[in-house]
Amino acid sequence: MQDSSKKIYEGKAKIIYETENPDVLISYFKDDATAFNAQKRGMIVGKGEMNCRIASHLFQLLESRGIDTHYIDRLTANEMLIKAVEIVPLEVIVRNIAAGSLCKQTGLPEGLHLPQPIVEYCYKSDSLGDPLLTDDRLALLNVATPAEVATIGSLARRVNEVLTDFFAKCGIVLVDFKIEFGRDRTGNILLADEISPDSCRLWLANEPDPVLRILDKDRFRRDLGNVEGAYREVLRRVEGGA
Amino acid sequence: MQDSSKKIYEGKAKIIYETENPDVLISYFKDDATAFNAQKRGMIVGKGEMNCRIASHLFQLLESRGIDTHYIDRLTANEMLIKAVEIVPLEVIVRNIAAGSLCKQTGLPEGLHLPQPIVEYCYKSDSLGDPLLTDDRLALLNVATPAEVATIGSLARRVNEVLTDFFAKCGIVLVDFKIEFGRDRTGNILLADEISPDSCRLWLANEPDPVLRILDKDRFRRDLGNVEGAYREVLRRVEGGA
Repeated sequence: MQDSSKKIYEGKAKIIYETENPDVLISYFKDDATAFNAQKRGMIVGKGEMNCRIASHLFQLLESRGIDTHYIDRLTANEMLIKAVEIVPLEVIVRNIAAGSLCKQTGLPEGLHLPQPIVEYCYKSDSLGDPLLTDDRLALLNVATPAEVATIGSLARRVNEVLTDFFAKCGIVLVDFKIEFGRDRTGNILLADEISPDSCRLWLANEPDPVLRILDKDRFRRDLGNVEGAYREVLRRVEGGA
Repeated sequence: MQDSSKKIYEGKAKIIYETENPDVLISYFKDDATAFNAQKRGMIVGKGEMNCRIASHLFQLLESRGIDTHYIDRLTANEMLIKAVEIVPLEVIVRNIAAGSLCKQTGLPEGLHLPQPIVEYCYKSDSLGDPLLTDDRLALLNVATPAEVATIGSLARRVNEVLTDFFAKCGIVLVDFKIEFGRDRTGNILLADEISPDSCRLWLANEPDPVLRILDKDRFRRDLGNVEGAYREVLRRVEGGA
């Protein structure tokens, strides 16, 4: 951690510090874990470092496929150098298989393969509980211009294509994931935040058991045990699948 | 009530009875009032008759403007003769001004005039709490074909145009409303259920006071008093505005 740097933001899983360059920040990945809008709190030992390494790997992969991200470099075990952006207050969720809130809210069965990937938007607001947005509500809230929303939607689909292929090569099914975007000083939309087992649902490809296959934060949410082991397995496969 | 008729469905505010003709049913309007997914229960004296008369009037108005509805005739004070339909399990909500769940869920201010009317869909499911649906979720649930959804959306907008104009002539602002649709035996989509102060937000046009102006079920939901008086005022204006 940078003792000399000023903390400018602390979220549930990360702390953002400034650097001498106003266009560059440091993202520090914490071991803290929260779920259900922070109603459940805990710690996953080593998570900060594992997520920082996984996210660094995936950001580099996406950059190599032409997707602009906030990633600059990995600084220490759990610190990432990132471009300063203004975060668009949307949780952008891409789903390939029905799980989580989609099933809870609609009654669709978990594990249903969707006919095509869908992109959903939730309004990032802890006090409102990150509500799901229809296209009309997204437009009314005016948190992004229509052009930005179109860019974000097509980037999200492209990220899904790249990551689905990559995880498949790692023997992992990318069920769904949440990403966030930011605007840099010139208004470019960059993929920001993180991509990790905290923000993705990842299932072992050849494991039919619906609990054993889970390699993501659902092990923490649902008290399934072996949380650290699952994150470590994702890290091993992601770094091995380079 | 038809003692000789068999009850085939009882909802929160209505009972449906069969007749000797399988294509014709009787809708009996109850005085019972519920709110918040039936967590709040009560009674509004005379509501059954008032809503039956208001809905009859509005269905006839809509029919006269070319919108097919399930309405056939008014039978008694609180009974309506209707065409038998299979209800599409969607609550179709049309909004002109922000209020209710739109404000609670997004933080948009109550009373905000929307740049254009919006149509929202909730999945009719008491156990799931009538969840809001995105277009993708609506398609995944497969409760209506894409062609039916398109028909329902354009009918809902047309209903809004006719009712907004009509209520304006009655000195009432149509803030939002919930309607339901059904399929008849040949697959035609008909406007069904009811249109009444139970299912609309109606504000007095020239009353700036945000509580005094309310002429709908929000008086019951929010314990504002004078519920019967508000319904009676709507009935008086609707029948007078014929």
